Amino acid sequence: MPHEEVEILLVEDSAEDVELTMLALQKNNLANKVHVARDGAQALDFLFCRGSHTERSFVKPPRFILLDLKLPKIDGLEVLRAIKNDPRTRPVPVVVMTSSKEQRDMVEGYKLGVNSYIQKPIDFGQFREVVKQLGYYWLVINQPPPAETFNP
Amino acid sequence: MPHEEVEILLVEDSAEDVELTMLALQKNNLANKVHVARDGAQALDFLFCRGSHTERSFVKPPRFILLDLKLPKIDGLEVLRAIKNDPRTRPVPVVVMTSSKEQRDMVEGYKLGVNSYIQKPIDFGQFREVVKQLGYYWLVINQPPPAETFNP
Repeated sequence: MPHEEVEILLVEDSAEDVELTMLALQKNNLANKVHVARDGAQALDFLFCRGSHTERSFVKPPRFILLDLKLPKIDGLEVLRAIKNDPRTRPVPVVVMTSSKEQRDMVEGYKLGVNSYIQKPIDFGQFREVVKQLGYYWLVINQPPPAETFNP
Repeated sequence: MPHEEVEILLVEDSAEDVELTMLALQKNNLANKVHVARDGAQALDFLFCRGSHTERSFVKPPRFILLDLKLPKIDGLEVLRAIKNDPRTRPVPVVVMTSSKEQRDMVEGYKLGVNSYIQKPIDFGQFREVVKQLGYYWLVINQPPPAETFNP
């Protein structure tokens, strides 16, 4: 799929959670344009149009980013900090979905400017419901930042 | 109701839109703790614990703010700017819901750090569905910033 068509950037290192998330999105016809990054470095290369993503453009970001926190190489809060510290990526909605129950992660996430913070349910039925709700909200209800937002 | 119990700050000058929003929230049991501000000045007095709201505390903000843009006295984008420019209020999720089709409002909203931006549907059935979805998302799915986020 052409990179500019990506609607969701899913940043998740657990193969099982990627599969469950994709299943929940597919079941609700929300999964046709998902790009998966398996660690924080891959996520930043994708978003900052580097490495194997030099053909991408900052003005065509995903509609939203679903970001796990405990990630190899560069952790989720550092990914969030990089996104929100750069005007070329700051407007892209970032939804943290984490199994962390650490209050300090939530505090830090909000201080860094996360758009939304979600506790990852352990029960699969609840997990599927939450993914459906958030997918619908951010793809259908929310209006993503238009291309002009990303022009200097 | 005690101010610290407010879950939604609804900033809306149209009496009809306030009524429609409250009806949609009530129908889905999401409307028990709503405070309505009818202009931008009332909204900022409430959020910054001023005027008739000096007994409020910054550490107990609403779970989210539903903000119209075309408002008397202080307009919605200025309210958003004030919220996102102050560390005492910045983490509170702000959802703009507007009938404006001006692209520059959306661009400016995202540049100022809005958490989510929604086009207000004209059709009442669609309006009710959107209010239900956003109420559920921000009150049930999203974890609001904990009190520690607001301590200096």
